[in-house]
Amino acid sequence: MTREDLLLSRLERYVASDAAPMHMPGHKRRTDRAEIAAFPNPFAIDITEIDGFDNLHHPEGILKDSMAWVASVYGSDRTWYLVNGSTAGVLGAIHAAADGKILMARNSHKSAYHAVILNRRPACYVYPQTIDKWGINGGISAEDVEQILAGDTKISAVFLTSPTYEGVVSDVRAIAEAAHRHGVPLIVDEAHGAHLSFRPGIRRELSSTGPAEGAFPESALSCGADVVIQSLHKTLPSLTQTAVLHLKGERIEERRLERYLQMFQSSSPSYVFMASIERCIYEMWKHGVRELEAFAGRLERIRERLAPLQNLRLAGREWVGKRAVFAVDSSRIVVSCRACFPAADGVQAVTGERLGQWLREEYHIEVEMCGADYVVAITTFMDRQEHLDRLADAFLEIDRRLVRASADDACEIAFPVAEPVWEMADALSENGETVQLEACLGRVCAEFVYIYPPGIPILAPGERVTSAAFAVLKHYRKIGLPLKGMADPEGRFIRVI
Amino acid sequence: MTREDLLLSRLERYVASDAAPMHMPGHKRRTDRAEIAAFPNPFAIDITEIDGFDNLHHPEGILKDSMAWVASVYGSDRTWYLVNGSTAGVLGAIHAAADGKILMARNSHKSAYHAVILNRRPACYVYPQTIDKWGINGGISAEDVEQILAGDTKISAVFLTSPTYEGVVSDVRAIAEAAHRHGVPLIVDEAHGAHLSFRPGIRRELSSTGPAEGAFPESALSCGADVVIQSLHKTLPSLTQTAVLHLKGERIEERRLERYLQMFQSSSPSYVFMASIERCIYEMWKHGVRELEAFAGRLERIRERLAPLQNLRLAGREWVGKRAVFAVDSSRIVVSCRACFPAADGVQAVTGERLGQWLREEYHIEVEMCGADYVVAITTFMDRQEHLDRLADAFLEIDRRLVRASADDACEIAFPVAEPVWEMADALSENGETVQLEACLGRVCAEFVYIYPPGIPILAPGERVTSAAFAVLKHYRKIGLPLKGMADPEGRFIRVI
Repeated sequence: MTREDLLLSRLERYVASDAAPMHMPGHKRRTDRAEIAAFPNPFAIDITEIDGFDNLHHPEGILKDSMAWVASVYGSDRTWYLVNGSTAGVLGAIHAAADGKILMARNSHKSAYHAVILNRRPACYVYPQTIDKWGINGGISAEDVEQILAGDTKISAVFLTSPTYEGVVSDVRAIAEAAHRHGVPLIVDEAHGAHLSFRPGIRRELSSTGPAEGAFPESALSCGADVVIQSLHKTLPSLTQTAVLHLKGERIEERRLERYLQMFQSSSPSYVFMASIERCIYEMWKHGVRELEAFAGRLERIRERLAPLQNLRLAGREWVGKRAVFAVDSSRIVVSCRACFPAADGVQAVTGERLGQWLREEYHIEVEMCGADYVVAITTFMDRQEHLDRLADAFLEIDRRLVRASADDACEIAFPVAEPVWEMADALSENGETVQLEACLGRVCAEFVYIYPPGIPILAPGERVTSAAFAVLKHYRKIGLPLKGMADPEGRFIRVI
Repeated sequence: MTREDLLLSRLERYVASDAAPMHMPGHKRRTDRAEIAAFPNPFAIDITEIDGFDNLHHPEGILKDSMAWVASVYGSDRTWYLVNGSTAGVLGAIHAAADGKILMARNSHKSAYHAVILNRRPACYVYPQTIDKWGINGGISAEDVEQILAGDTKISAVFLTSPTYEGVVSDVRAIAEAAHRHGVPLIVDEAHGAHLSFRPGIRRELSSTGPAEGAFPESALSCGADVVIQSLHKTLPSLTQTAVLHLKGERIEERRLERYLQMFQSSSPSYVFMASIERCIYEMWKHGVRELEAFAGRLERIRERLAPLQNLRLAGREWVGKRAVFAVDSSRIVVSCRACFPAADGVQAVTGERLGQWLREEYHIEVEMCGADYVVAITTFMDRQEHLDRLADAFLEIDRRLVRASADDACEIAFPVAEPVWEMADALSENGETVQLEACLGRVCAEFVYIYPPGIPILAPGERVTSAAFAVLKHYRKIGLPLKGMADPEGRFIRVI
């Protein structure tokens, strides 16, 4: 090991490059901006709970005051700082809320599945709508939630992710109403939507009858959710691994929630993180609405520039599921390359992975995620105009090299419906065996299998590998998506019971 | 809220003061040292898992190589970086190891109790020896462990903390041998002993037959423990909330351990933290032994200077339990004010809290912890000589103002022996009632009650408030120790079932 090989040296070299960061964290390393340039050397302010400072897990002084002020900014009853990311919030909220069965959106983040395993309570799923045109998951339908709750009185909490990785926002207001009619709380993983709390205007545009207006949909907190968890680092200028959890109402017991948040977080919480969280919220409180207003204008112009795309397609406000229209966060730039082929060599359809590679190698643009046949770029108000322009230029240029199959005949990959056979925790405890991917059809999976990002399971432990799931795995492997959880990094083997 | 009120501003003001930090973190904010001064603005290097970098939870590239190199430095079979502190390591290791009952040292950190609650497996306790002279917990006796294991075949893992907050190191070698004879793994919470891995010399001084030699006892990893968890920030120059977990041997399944470590940590781990961890270990690998050798000399001189103390007493190498001698980490400066009274006004014995207050107000020294009748200062090789001298001067000056009762007749507070009535998790789920402290004798406690630091429970949920526990609570409240977990910040009320 040499000093040059150190992670620190590699990071310093990387950030000296001209790569455009169309990914998290939301601060985009803008050390040219005064408020970020002024952040001190982290070692200089890295202290512990000493006199005059406070204990995150038993706040009685400045942290208590600080979190109380933050709660007033958000209009929550109570807000906690999280130094172990939204993960800690999801684990804590599910433990606090789910005494019985939990109804969770199948496209929930892995941390929600982890919570179910640790909590040893049963889970059942509501599936996101599929947006056929894009091959992307839409939102969760309030009717589905209502129907499932009506048919199962053992459900004690509802959990869903909104916005999704792709920026799809469910009708949280209607879902919260459904949950509350059945006397259970709604927990919303709004990890990707921390900026929504500072959106301009107070229009109530989110409804199940029409498309959303405005660049940024409403936050789940103002739509009646009981607990809302927001990653600050994903879309706002705060350090990676910082988040907040908001509680509203009394459907989830505050004391119980606080106890679990203590359990899932370091007993030596970082003051660097807490200072970053508070400063971020302070700046957003002061300037957030103005910043987001200007940002909405920049996004509008980028979307106008991308309107002439002939082959690639920019996902927009017209996201329509089978039974509902979903609001979309316009800062999430989702570009589909579905049914696109290189004009010069039209044998193999362009995958999201390949599109991402072109962006990286030819344009020095790093996107957040490459899906099966789309890429996701995360933009925030911290993005440099030059980088937004570079992104638009790149899509326009790449578009000219492509042709699209006339019919949308690309392989249709819907979310495979889970067939649980074992309890998740039990399946994980089994020793199982490792088999070739080709031989897993019909077997019971002993691991999570998913693509990261976004980290949503295709198969959870204890679920049968149905032919639908099998087809998805084979397809993803074929097009080179990073299948995780398989028994080997190449995704050739899988653990089954 | 104004900019001046922000945590960030408060931290900057605090660090501009001349307070001597005799507490964590171990880097002591030494921004005058080149390697710390050179640490970049954290926002500049705060990235996510993008191409060329790696995924902590599925390391395949530079993080995998980095952690493999670190494992070779420590001589472990595998080492993981922890970004949620030692807490994540304790939660993960106990979940991975404890299929059945866990035998844990009663003076374990709260995170171990949290692991037991989350894991819903029974726990039983081994009690630390008491060092009568100091009223401080000693180490865990290997004979006690052996005896308990011989009498209970349901135990599936042993867990203990060594060194303790007060620097007491148990005979880990003998305890590991006892555990292994009974076929169960030993997990050591070495959160306070990360520096021990870089101690000078390779003397095998830790034995149950004689006192330790040398300033720093041996790390648990070289004494046969199966899992060792070290906080890097407590005694080494790394950011708060950073830690490592070492695995050796095959008594704990690697895959299972890794899975739980994933569950308890953010899915957006901080690269700032990971860079801090790796850089810290790199510097220790290069210069650690030399630094610690020089530091041992400085500690020796401080201890010599404190030899003339007449009333206060510096805990030293003669720490003797009832049946064993324990090794002591000499960097932990533990000063007892037991049976000391102010010479001018000798009515009330000096408490640890009062001693800490004198140090803070008169000498601008902040110690890590004030116990019932002692204080703990954490020193590291990063301490300025001026601060070490100030600490010694302060103790010598304060000592001259005191007198000591001739007999050691101060209230004897041993560790109350737990009387579990309910399972911990069940007791926590109960609604219970809040009663005055005076009325809790004989009731079943519904919360953890402890002093923080060090965060070791006097009562755990489900335990009866015995007269011994009741006496400890009353005494601690009387002398103004920060009792946490009580139903109110003043420690007047307690939740019982």
